[in-house]
Amino acid sequence: MSLWPRYCPPDFSIPELVHAPKVTTKPAPLDGVAPLDFHGTSNHPEYLHLGNGNWLLIAESRMDGVVVLRDGAVEVVEARRLKKGDPVVVGRTENGEEGIYVHPYGFAVPEVVDDEKFSFRTRGTRETPFSRSYDDLYQVLRHDRDHGHIVWVLGPAVVFDRDSRSAMQGLIENGYCHALLAGNALATHDLEAALFGTGLGQDIYTQKLAPHGHYNHLEIINRVRLHGSIKAAIAALGLSDGIICACEKYGIPYVLAGSIRDDGPLPEVITDVCQAQDAMRNQARRATTVIAVATQLHSIAFGNMLPGYRVLLGGEVRPVFLYLVDMSEFSADKLANRGSAQAQAILTNAQDFMVNLFNNLLKE
Amino acid sequence: MSLWPRYCPPDFSIPELVHAPKVTTKPAPLDGVAPLDFHGTSNHPEYLHLGNGNWLLIAESRMDGVVVLRDGAVEVVEARRLKKGDPVVVGRTENGEEGIYVHPYGFAVPEVVDDEKFSFRTRGTRETPFSRSYDDLYQVLRHDRDHGHIVWVLGPAVVFDRDSRSAMQGLIENGYCHALLAGNALATHDLEAALFGTGLGQDIYTQKLAPHGHYNHLEIINRVRLHGSIKAAIAALGLSDGIICACEKYGIPYVLAGSIRDDGPLPEVITDVCQAQDAMRNQARRATTVIAVATQLHSIAFGNMLPGYRVLLGGEVRPVFLYLVDMSEFSADKLANRGSAQAQAILTNAQDFMVNLFNNLLKE
Amino acid sequence: MSLWPRYCPPDFSIPELVHAPKVTTKPAPLDGVAPLDFHGTSNHPEYLHLGNGNWLLIAESRMDGVVVLRDGAVEVVEARRLKKGDPVVVGRTENGEEGIYVHPYGFAVPEVVDDEKFSFRTRGTRETPFSRSYDDLYQVLRHDRDHGHIVWVLGPAVVFDRDSRSAMQGLIENGYCHALLAGNALATHDLEAALFGTGLGQDIYTQKLAPHGHYNHLEIINRVRLHGSIKAAIAALGLSDGIICACEKYGIPYVLAGSIRDDGPLPEVITDVCQAQDAMRNQARRATTVIAVATQLHSIAFGNMLPGYRVLLGGEVRPVFLYLVDMSEFSADKLANRGSAQAQAILTNAQDFMVNLFNNLLKE
Amino acid sequence: MSLWPRYCPPDFSIPELVHAPKVTTKPAPLDGVAPLDFHGTSNHPEYLHLGNGNWLLIAESRMDGVVVLRDGAVEVVEARRLKKGDPVVVGRTENGEEGIYVHPYGFAVPEVVDDEKFSFRTRGTRETPFSRSYDDLYQVLRHDRDHGHIVWVLGPAVVFDRDSRSAMQGLIENGYCHALLAGNALATHDLEAALFGTGLGQDIYTQKLAPHGHYNHLEIINRVRLHGSIKAAIAALGLSDGIICACEKYGIPYVLAGSIRDDGPLPEVITDVCQAQDAMRNQARRATTVIAVATQLHSIAFGNMLPGYRVLLGGEVRPVFLYLVDMSEFSADKLANRGSAQAQAILTNAQDFMVNLFNNLLKE
Repeated sequence: MSLWPRYCPPDFSIPELVHAPKVTTKPAPLDGVAPLDFHGTSNHPEYLHLGNGNWLLIAESRMDGVVVLRDGAVEVVEARRLKKGDPVVVGRTENGEEGIYVHPYGFAVPEVVDDEKFSFRTRGTRETPFSRSYDDLYQVLRHDRDHGHIVWVLGPAVVFDRDSRSAMQGLIENGYCHALLAGNALATHDLEAALFGTGLGQDIYTQKLAPHGHYNHLEIINRVRLHGSIKAAIAALGLSDGIICACEKYGIPYVLAGSIRDDGPLPEVITDVCQAQDAMRNQARRATTVIAVATQLHSIAFGNMLPGYRVLLGGEVRPVFLYLVDMSEFSADKLANRGSAQAQAILTNAQDFMVNLFNNLLKE
Repeated sequence: MSLWPRYCPPDFSIPELVHAPKVTTKPAPLDGVAPLDFHGTSNHPEYLHLGNGNWLLIAESRMDGVVVLRDGAVEVVEARRLKKGDPVVVGRTENGEEGIYVHPYGFAVPEVVDDEKFSFRTRGTRETPFSRSYDDLYQVLRHDRDHGHIVWVLGPAVVFDRDSRSAMQGLIENGYCHALLAGNALATHDLEAALFGTGLGQDIYTQKLAPHGHYNHLEIINRVRLHGSIKAAIAALGLSDGIICACEKYGIPYVLAGSIRDDGPLPEVITDVCQAQDAMRNQARRATTVIAVATQLHSIAFGNMLPGYRVLLGGEVRPVFLYLVDMSEFSADKLANRGSAQAQAILTNAQDFMVNLFNNLLKE
Repeated sequence: MSLWPRYCPPDFSIPELVHAPKVTTKPAPLDGVAPLDFHGTSNHPEYLHLGNGNWLLIAESRMDGVVVLRDGAVEVVEARRLKKGDPVVVGRTENGEEGIYVHPYGFAVPEVVDDEKFSFRTRGTRETPFSRSYDDLYQVLRHDRDHGHIVWVLGPAVVFDRDSRSAMQGLIENGYCHALLAGNALATHDLEAALFGTGLGQDIYTQKLAPHGHYNHLEIINRVRLHGSIKAAIAALGLSDGIICACEKYGIPYVLAGSIRDDGPLPEVITDVCQAQDAMRNQARRATTVIAVATQLHSIAFGNMLPGYRVLLGGEVRPVFLYLVDMSEFSADKLANRGSAQAQAILTNAQDFMVNLFNNLLKE
Repeated sequence: MSLWPRYCPPDFSIPELVHAPKVTTKPAPLDGVAPLDFHGTSNHPEYLHLGNGNWLLIAESRMDGVVVLRDGAVEVVEARRLKKGDPVVVGRTENGEEGIYVHPYGFAVPEVVDDEKFSFRTRGTRETPFSRSYDDLYQVLRHDRDHGHIVWVLGPAVVFDRDSRSAMQGLIENGYCHALLAGNALATHDLEAALFGTGLGQDIYTQKLAPHGHYNHLEIINRVRLHGSIKAAIAALGLSDGIICACEKYGIPYVLAGSIRDDGPLPEVITDVCQAQDAMRNQARRATTVIAVATQLHSIAFGNMLPGYRVLLGGEVRPVFLYLVDMSEFSADKLANRGSAQAQAILTNAQDFMVNLFNNLLKE
């Protein structure tokens, strides 16, 4: 299996690590507050020295989490979830001096180092060739459909176009989506399209503005609220196409996280952002491949809580792939600047991206 | 006073309006659900015919609200806030046929209509000349400092730069800010700068990355949470500069609306987005000028709930100015595409915008 | 045939036009200088009154051209091409007052006018649904392959990616390109890919930077210059794939217009920009469909010289389609702001656009 | 004087360099063609070993040039300027193996290396703090006004706004501009503003579209052509404000390089792009600070031909500063991807940038 390089754990037999002290903890001083010198996790594999050369790999990590270590069991949580007295790992160093070892190079392919003093094209932009990125992604998706956990993070742009929306529907129907993370807008406009054929009042195929079209999203929201749930509304209104209907039909879990931009919102929207984060984080713990499309808010939010690796059942460590699809270098850079440097950006329109995936994964 | 054109109400003596029926209402079928044919408000002035030529101007309107009309008193609310049985105005027409008249041209300056068949530069872009927009804005701000209600909607970019952050601090100190709307990030990085001189770990002046700088925002959040509130933390940590300190010192209300991207969050952050909207809406009802800088999320959210006009105490109707400062045409178009067409875009970097305002309003 | 609406000429029987004066000319005062009150053409159909109700439609017009009218024969030229004494049409009005009638609405589909006072999504952005634009374009290309003149205007981004470059090669091989307009960079990097598999030193598939890759474009330029021509170099170096090879093989004319960014340049590059414009203008006179991809410079240049219509041999008037493919709203707006308002923008990455066309036109 | 770090030449006493061979040359096989294994220059300092430990620093280098070495005298030229038989330096290595040593780190400030495994904000974006960049630039300009050679590279956006255009005029009047590089558009719209107060027909202050404004740029071009030169037209038309008038008044040389987008062009425009490059290159040889504003075409063109250092009269080596002002990360990345990695990007609107410079350099 060559979809990714084999993971190489650190060499704990080197003197610095052999003589490393045990990791230490301090009790959380209050609910939701960490000890002052708390250790903050990265999205890289990190090991804690439990003593006697016993280094424990932290599973289900995330960026900017804290580590509760109790009786040799470790959990990475957000500081707001700490309870007073929880034993929290402390220390800021990364090389073992405090019993913490961060290991970002476990999947690095040994390569001839490029040491030229002058070179072109060192930065990824819209002009980077993406054929290979697509091909890699197709392979990963084919693998993870049956042996992984594919999480989609979608902005509303995906449903504003007919072909793009149908493509995503098809990917769900064919097993390429194990969970969907989105906001009220994605779900609202997808259901708006199912009922009216429009997105924010504009026909998703002809581009025409429907008469009184600016009512359409309010209409669908009001009707779903009247029926009490998306599921009930789909049945009552006879809706059948689109992303949300496919999720409902195939039992794909979806998390609709609230935002201050929401109209309505739909009943399923989690309006408390901390609760929404918790629901998203449950998917981050399981994800093997994440595709974040046309949403800076949700992409960065989920990127923050996503580890760069996953420990599989047999103990094997594999990378977690994070693809970012956006139109601007700024969005890709922003994700990188907030620590999600492993994200692979494909800079293009969400519509074409979705259609490409459909064509390559589902049309033969 | 010529900062804006005098408002011209509709001519209700024209036959169509003279013979218009009374507006009608229907009871809300459930809590949080509007009657199916509810009337959705725009951000323009709208009038309801109460009978006998008595047309009532809706005050404190917003986009996509519903109208509760009870005993001649009118209130525009979000549909989610309806109680079962509330009398909700119904009707979708705008020209009086159902007793509803929408009046978008009350502030229009009579002008020679441009009817050329071919012309250049019909679209606003980064190449639009903004000198006049700035000059107008300076005048409006000088007026509204004493006779209006200036609301700022800020993204974190404003505090990532020293001069920009100081400029905003100066504007607050000098009365140019009556309310601040932002998210956890703005407040966190502003306080991070106050304590460490950095924004997300990068020195806000020298651009250098501080050692272990990626801890800095977690540190400040953790310390504020330890002290229980921003106010307490400012005192305990001896913080004195920046936007949040200025708000606290001068008693400027600020709303920190939660989002799924938040670390922490700070104690003052309203994590329920509906409650956050309600707090923002309170400012929208009073705003006379709004300046939204470098935040698509908050700009669109607040644009949605902001009327295009305000009814002053004496009954005078004035425009509510909405300035959008952003780097991309896409953001400006997006605001317009969601109905906030009155927004005046200034396409530039938030940093320069803030410094410009400071230089022109405060340096003589 | 319904690919476009039937052209409706103006009604010259209305009184204003019946009584319109004859158009007048004045002699050019100097070589390359127009009379002070010259008439500047738009890209719309324009008619000149030759007297007695005889209105002549200007063929092969362009934006910002001047009209030489001699013995009832009309030609639109750039002012720099005037010879002293040439009879140049004068007058600035568009409605017949000076014998000139501009007719922008010949292809307008009669439509119910949208007179809503409030609406969403009035501006085209990356979130506009493009499925229909693609479908229309496929139809037009299938038609114009055999019955029109398809001109491509390409930026170098098209050849930086393997699949995109192959797609364009396939379109040429299958008759979907009657002329190619580009610059030195497109040709250089296409030939670089043919020889080295790289674009500016980066592998067009694997994204890897080749050792000393920053020499590759200089190498190919130097070798082509050594062999004296692209054709000779292709033979000598045994090149066979890519866009330029396909043009050479199938006899597709290509214009390589020089710019100050050029390395080399290749021998075929026209280094005088006026001569380059003249060569491009020859294609503009014949074009029926233009697809401009990822090049603001060439897109705006060619948009300026492209009429919005073409008079076919039998006298039928048809629209000239102009598609603009770019990543940013700014580029689309810029084209519109310089008068090419008829351009249909598809906002996406050039790579995906090319692959889409290939998949839909050539893969069954 | 601490505006830049002192230049540290290479240590030629290290064994690899002591034993380095002499650099070799081969004759150019044809006019405009380099030997196959030519050495291509970077924009870094490069040294040629002339034998016996005599290493010659190449002065007036550029990116992608070739080196003619004759009788110990060295000149960097574009390959197209070679004459058959010219002795051209050959070799591709950078470390002395072929007598060529590339030295990119001469100005590097010794610094504690950042070896953190995880960090934020490693990429420059619009959110990078620019206060320091501005302050540095002010200092450099104050120095170079009297002791350097400041070259401006301007896109037309600079003259589309009143305050921005006046700011540039003021900088010229006060000695902050030793040469101006631009295209036909900048000069045309600047003169259009001087005559009509518009840019492409739009009032540069009020934003109003002038009646028949789309004629304005054609008018000014035609009139200048009628008078034969810009200087003559300024006198004849009584023009007095703006950038071009200031250049004429103060004798500042300006190069107007032609492009295929040009209307007209103005008489002074160099329509042959190779000749235009040669004129620009003359400025590149002398430049000490370059400010490129809102023009990707001219910025990249000039960046290509600009060395990263300059050898002053006394032999001192100083850096050449290159500031890039643009709205998008893409433009900054593009410059870097073509080798101008030393460019310091300030991502903002040209208008604000110009006004900032004016306020800080000229208003006290």
